[in-house]
Amino acid sequence: MKPAVVLLSGGLDSATVSAIAKSEGFALYALSFRYGQRHGIELESAVRVAEALGVAEHAIVEIDLRRFGGSALTADIPVPKGRCAGAIGEGIPVTYVPARNTVFLSFALAWAETLGSEDIFIGVNVQDYSGYPDCRPAFIEAFEQMANLATAAGVEGRQRLRIHAPLMQMTKAEIIARGLSLGVDYGLTSSCYDPGTDGRPCGHCDACLLRAKGFADAGYPDPLSLRFGLFVP
Amino acid sequence: MKPAVVLLSGGLDSATVSAIAKSEGFALYALSFRYGQRHGIELESAVRVAEALGVAEHAIVEIDLRRFGGSALTADIPVPKGRCAGAIGEGIPVTYVPARNTVFLSFALAWAETLGSEDIFIGVNVQDYSGYPDCRPAFIEAFEQMANLATAAGVEGRQRLRIHAPLMQMTKAEIIARGLSLGVDYGLTSSCYDPGTDGRPCGHCDACLLRAKGFADAGYPDPLSLRFGLFVP
Repeated sequence: MKPAVVLLSGGLDSATVSAIAKSEGFALYALSFRYGQRHGIELESAVRVAEALGVAEHAIVEIDLRRFGGSALTADIPVPKGRCAGAIGEGIPVTYVPARNTVFLSFALAWAETLGSEDIFIGVNVQDYSGYPDCRPAFIEAFEQMANLATAAGVEGRQRLRIHAPLMQMTKAEIIARGLSLGVDYGLTSSCYDPGTDGRPCGHCDACLLRAKGFADAGYPDPLSLRFGLFVP
Repeated sequence: MKPAVVLLSGGLDSATVSAIAKSEGFALYALSFRYGQRHGIELESAVRVAEALGVAEHAIVEIDLRRFGGSALTADIPVPKGRCAGAIGEGIPVTYVPARNTVFLSFALAWAETLGSEDIFIGVNVQDYSGYPDCRPAFIEAFEQMANLATAAGVEGRQRLRIHAPLMQMTKAEIIARGLSLGVDYGLTSSCYDPGTDGRPCGHCDACLLRAKGFADAGYPDPLSLRFGLFVP
């Protein structure tokens, strides 16, 4: 089995991407980050998802993106709550973390190089997160091009690195449907930007609202909501 | 004064680049990394160089690149010693750290974005380090292109990020001559891959040999060698 590095946050998208990579025959090297996120509970989800998927290895790397501030996910900026779905995606959200995907993909690149892997998977998509600049196809393509110039193997022609973003053009409902068809247990995942210490979703931040809409559109109850006795549409 | 993020390792090249950025009128935001390097003494040099240059801020970010192994600078691979100068630069050295400059530049990008800076300075050059893939012009250009797609400001057209690599085509001797003309005190810097705990250069690794050759070619004694009573050609 060829090794692939998979960015695994513990959320719905990255769990689905990991399952897709596995279904394509890759041995998974899951990569998560403790980056000063206020929703650190997602790392517990990442561990559960990695176990459930039977990854070859799960690395949790500590980096301190709080040093540079600038996001509601890492700094003392309130997470927006209760926005109507229409407002989500207008402009760049305060939950955007500066250069986060660039930093994450750079570490994935370092690991891919030492593993001799040619494949990195990331769960970005444009539909729900159109406000995040580093979730767009042009960014992913530019990163891939840069990555192939950055590594020893790329320069020597021994390696052709690909950044896989299979969710790029999918809606949240399509992502959920795909994951369910691959046996993903979404009860293990965590999406909330501001969860309780027990992992209870707040139910009102953008991530909770998009997740709820996704499950509603997919016509399937969210096992996480069921577990916490939250309203299921 | 416009802010610029400067990657500052504490070595000769990054000290020179910082002085160049300062001479161009930038306020310096120096960025160093504790990345598991065995030559951690270079961070003490970085602090001294940053002080001497009067930087606006000096951030030292902790990241663990040892997690992924693969380099004599971070793993238990011996640092090569006593190679003739001709052998340096043949192929990719074992001191290459996978994706290191990609990771470093990604953090610089994060900081630049929160500072509202459009300028990142890095001390790479092709002449002496032709074996490092992430020190080539094509890599720097690809990173710049990616960076302008990665950030909120880039997408909104509020920012045009530039990666400055003013040493790219210079020889070590030219770099030293330029730094001296700008008043850089190279006695504060550290280049050795395997120094003593007191900062004493080993005198035999590639970095020491290239530094010695650079000072010899520049026709100037290395103040660091003088301090430690090392042979000065």
